[in-house]
Amino acid sequence: MREEFQFWHTVIVRWGDMDAQAHVNNARYFTFFESARIAFFDSVDLRLHNHDSNEGPALVTTTANFRKQVHYPATLEIGVRLTRIGNRSISLAMAAFSEGTNDIVADATSVNAWVDYDKNQSADLPDWLREVLTRHIRLQD
Amino acid sequence: MREEFQFWHTVIVRWGDMDAQAHVNNARYFTFFESARIAFFDSVDLRLHNHDSNEGPALVTTTANFRKQVHYPATLEIGVRLTRIGNRSISLAMAAFSEGTNDIVADATSVNAWVDYDKNQSADLPDWLREVLTRHIRLQD
Amino acid sequence: MREEFQFWHTVIVRWGDMDAQAHVNNARYFTFFESARIAFFDSVDLRLHNHDSNEGPALVTTTANFRKQVHYPATLEIGVRLTRIGNRSISLAMAAFSEGTNDIVADATSVNAWVDYDKNQSADLPDWLREVLTRHIRLQD
Amino acid sequence: MREEFQFWHTVIVRWGDMDAQAHVNNARYFTFFESARIAFFDSVDLRLHNHDSNEGPALVTTTANFRKQVHYPATLEIGVRLTRIGNRSISLAMAAFSEGTNDIVADATSVNAWVDYDKNQSADLPDWLREVLTRHIRLQD
Repeated sequence: MREEFQFWHTVIVRWGDMDAQAHVNNARYFTFFESARIAFFDSVDLRLHNHDSNEGPALVTTTANFRKQVHYPATLEIGVRLTRIGNRSISLAMAAFSEGTNDIVADATSVNAWVDYDKNQSADLPDWLREVLTRHIRLQD
Repeated sequence: MREEFQFWHTVIVRWGDMDAQAHVNNARYFTFFESARIAFFDSVDLRLHNHDSNEGPALVTTTANFRKQVHYPATLEIGVRLTRIGNRSISLAMAAFSEGTNDIVADATSVNAWVDYDKNQSADLPDWLREVLTRHIRLQD
Repeated sequence: MREEFQFWHTVIVRWGDMDAQAHVNNARYFTFFESARIAFFDSVDLRLHNHDSNEGPALVTTTANFRKQVHYPATLEIGVRLTRIGNRSISLAMAAFSEGTNDIVADATSVNAWVDYDKNQSADLPDWLREVLTRHIRLQD
Repeated sequence: MREEFQFWHTVIVRWGDMDAQAHVNNARYFTFFESARIAFFDSVDLRLHNHDSNEGPALVTTTANFRKQVHYPATLEIGVRLTRIGNRSISLAMAAFSEGTNDIVADATSVNAWVDYDKNQSADLPDWLREVLTRHIRLQD
């Protein structure tokens, strides 16, 4: 299961991530997955390449399944897998594992559109990004 | 579109709900939808009935689509629709509208399992809840 | 006590504002006070005047006292009082009351420096702001 | 400066900790200091000793000074110093350093009352806690 993921990001659960049910709140997992997604984008130098651009990713849809409760203290290892390179979007699958185990506490999918922030509309993925993402997928085969 | 929803909950966006892109952060919408879901459950007196019970709802899956950016200051009206009463789960559809408009800024679905918190496993929906939810759906027809 | 405050801002407590002790988390009060502070600044048209400026307020210190626990559902009314107009700073006192009561659940003070964001250093309060704040204080006498 | 602190806790800044000004939000520092405080309390086995007790710490006041802006990505090292063991309270001083530097980005103080949660009123610090805290201070001399 862990083998399915190409990129990993570690999240240390904070006491304040828990809600009134004394477990990590559902909305907080989306913050964790956001952290992993941004770290993945950074791993392909997205921010570096994108520094002078007015284009970038914008989250359009995301889903999560909550499998096990998590209580502070805990460390989660989030695996990220690129599942689709669209003309104007990037799809990811992610899973949060309890540190050092094969226990998935939550998994998620996300679709990021590529957006021209000035025009506030979708745009074609730039060539450099398509290339680096394709190479990323190939490395994993 | 607004007619599809049976229950409404208002969320006042806080300045602190915005992220570094100066719009409301994706994870925050899940907090908004959580607020609406809990208000809906309260509208059928779930907490009242459930006061001495060790059973209750637990979110197992949720999805959101982000349609428009929201910036502070803003007020959102979240419509809630009961979409399925399962043997051991309750499914909802929700949509967040800009106040006083038909503009949906984000929509979501959620499935809550009915859980025995002590045993940490799913349980049948109690009769009183099934009855009140069924009546809820009937009222809308 | 309520008479001491010139400006009011209402905060609706969200279920998600509670922590694992099932009361509103201490850090969340600072978000509430931030909301009140920004609403106060907006009440003197700070953002409007400041639209093309590279200067603005930056929080340099804040203190809060937690007097009573707050549980969802709750509505808080936050009173804001301007306590000092410095050469390069604005000091506020704030108190969060349970809606419709004289019960203070938490109070706070804050100092905002006036900052040149480009130079990342403090700057003199602009004349228009000093004038509008002074008028604000006078109105209250 | 670092020598003044007896206990250390590391916080990894999340992208989502930033606000619309694209720096770490003020309220989030209180979450970071809360993390450090809880880790400190755990270091003297507070939760372990306290497992069957209805008493424990409750934050009554806290102050923070914001010295430097922090942007994602960043790691903060928070030093904790016990400043006072009262009859019914524990006072701490904390400072958040940029990882591996002597740069303090924010510092804070806090007072936790010792509280009988059932009666919702303050109580004397238990002997075991006074003893372990006193030993803690002595170790540092």
